Amino acid sequence: MIAVDANGADAGPSVVAEGARRSGVPFKLYDSPVWISNEEEPVRAVRSKPEASIVQAARAVADGNAAAVVSAGSTGAMLAACTLHVKRLKGVHRPAVALLVPVPGRPTLLLDVGANVEVRPEHLVQFAYMGAAFMEAVHGLERPRVGLLNIGEEPGKGTEDLVAAHERLAGGPLNFVGNVEGTGLVGGAADVVVSDGFTGNVALKTMEGTAKAVAGAVRDAIRSNPVSAAGGLLVRRSVGRLREQLDPNTTGGAILLGLRGVAVVAHGSSTAEGVANAVRLAQRSVDEQMIERTAQALQAAGALRSAPAASVGDSHG
Amino acid sequence: MIAVDANGADAGPSVVAEGARRSGVPFKLYDSPVWISNEEEPVRAVRSKPEASIVQAARAVADGNAAAVVSAGSTGAMLAACTLHVKRLKGVHRPAVALLVPVPGRPTLLLDVGANVEVRPEHLVQFAYMGAAFMEAVHGLERPRVGLLNIGEEPGKGTEDLVAAHERLAGGPLNFVGNVEGTGLVGGAADVVVSDGFTGNVALKTMEGTAKAVAGAVRDAIRSNPVSAAGGLLVRRSVGRLREQLDPNTTGGAILLGLRGVAVVAHGSSTAEGVANAVRLAQRSVDEQMIERTAQALQAAGALRSAPAASVGDSHG
Repeated sequence: MIAVDANGADAGPSVVAEGARRSGVPFKLYDSPVWISNEEEPVRAVRSKPEASIVQAARAVADGNAAAVVSAGSTGAMLAACTLHVKRLKGVHRPAVALLVPVPGRPTLLLDVGANVEVRPEHLVQFAYMGAAFMEAVHGLERPRVGLLNIGEEPGKGTEDLVAAHERLAGGPLNFVGNVEGTGLVGGAADVVVSDGFTGNVALKTMEGTAKAVAGAVRDAIRSNPVSAAGGLLVRRSVGRLREQLDPNTTGGAILLGLRGVAVVAHGSSTAEGVANAVRLAQRSVDEQMIERTAQALQAAGALRSAPAASVGDSHG
Repeated sequence: MIAVDANGADAGPSVVAEGARRSGVPFKLYDSPVWISNEEEPVRAVRSKPEASIVQAARAVADGNAAAVVSAGSTGAMLAACTLHVKRLKGVHRPAVALLVPVPGRPTLLLDVGANVEVRPEHLVQFAYMGAAFMEAVHGLERPRVGLLNIGEEPGKGTEDLVAAHERLAGGPLNFVGNVEGTGLVGGAADVVVSDGFTGNVALKTMEGTAKAVAGAVRDAIRSNPVSAAGGLLVRRSVGRLREQLDPNTTGGAILLGLRGVAVVAHGSSTAEGVANAVRLAQRSVDEQMIERTAQALQAAGALRSAPAASVGDSHG
């Protein structure tokens, strides 16, 4: 059973409910007149509004009443609610927000895309194992290729922290392909691309903006051309399919990794189909034992920290 | 007279010479059997190879024998050669590499795109004034809109350094529009987008990769469609024009800002036309007194550092 937060989608709770129904997956809808907006400071809001639907849905996972939680609300609020209630996997420094990059044909998981603005090398190393375990479990990739987002392919490129992370990943059991540049992120140079949350977020939004700009320019070019009526119509259909592939609604949302439960954040602008895809992604993650496999991979690689996890709310833990 | 380094272009010195001729601008070609590759550590290579053509061309500016230098070689080597010989403007912490983002219709200057992997707030502030002065002088924009590349539009977003830079820029004389996300970088939210060199480089290459992927997918869609023969041909032409606009060859290359002279780096994959555009950009920067206007803007804003510039080679100066 998936706990679904009814609030947060731009289109309103009824569209979320419709999407959950459409998923074909058993779910329970958490609705509440109290909710957390994008503008609120997430940790404070989650603590002060225990009755908010996103908090209730996260608690359902913590209490064993749901196998996973899905929300189209604020990623920050979801992360705070899940860190407080679902909790981090033992030995995980920080959860990360991962997203399947909407590039046609070749799904690439990018993480972190915003939860961790500044990271240390050991955080990047954990992200790598968390991302690889997700792609193995949920997308069935064998030994996914893992890369580090950087400004050059040579191992010595980038910040000192990146050089240190590169060294540790190269010496570990992952299928580590080294540094990946922005072109490689889009070009399929790796199945999992690891980044701090700042750079990952900028890369993701740059990709979205560029895809929109180029597709829009192509559409304008076709429309402005009266002679290409027949051919243009077919081309427009092809471009339409392409836009669909690039649509955040079709990717099923962002997934929070490093937690003791499955948590998926659908895009705020999700349609019912976008919510349905997010719910299906959550169910698949449960079915494929993504959490257990992540914990095992981190353990086997010696990438867990030995000290007990810091108390909840210590975002620098 | 523009000093042109004959080495560095993938296509070889003859294409560089042809490009320089085609520019219609007076130039002198610096050729030498010694050159600096992308793989060499730039500062060391520039110091140990004074006879390299890129060093000779930079020295021509320092010695007053040329008004500007153009190279299709390594950006790092060009930066090192110019920092050593042309030298930084008095009070400038670090030169930056700026690039006109190849988005159709609306030129946006992005800086830094790779010279400064880690920066302090005062560096970002200087980049903002340097970029604005360039867009005013060379592209004729009145009071260009300047933004900070960040992961949210609110002033409190991002790292502490970004918050500090935001505060200083908001209090200064620039037409500062605040934080710009990756989508805004592509969508024309600002005329000048300021970033550390790491994030700027990742954003730039992500943009290039995405534009290539989307344009390629559109082309494939058109080609795979036999019914669209007539219309498709016209559409292909439109897409071809679009690709041309996105082509780094048409943007005239990267420009180094914060130096006492004009320095332009053409793309290594430049054709003769790409080199010609880079030479024309250099000449326009000279004609429009870009350097003097940059120095004045920094001075007027109180953005220069008061202590004398650190010795050359102190890349953290």
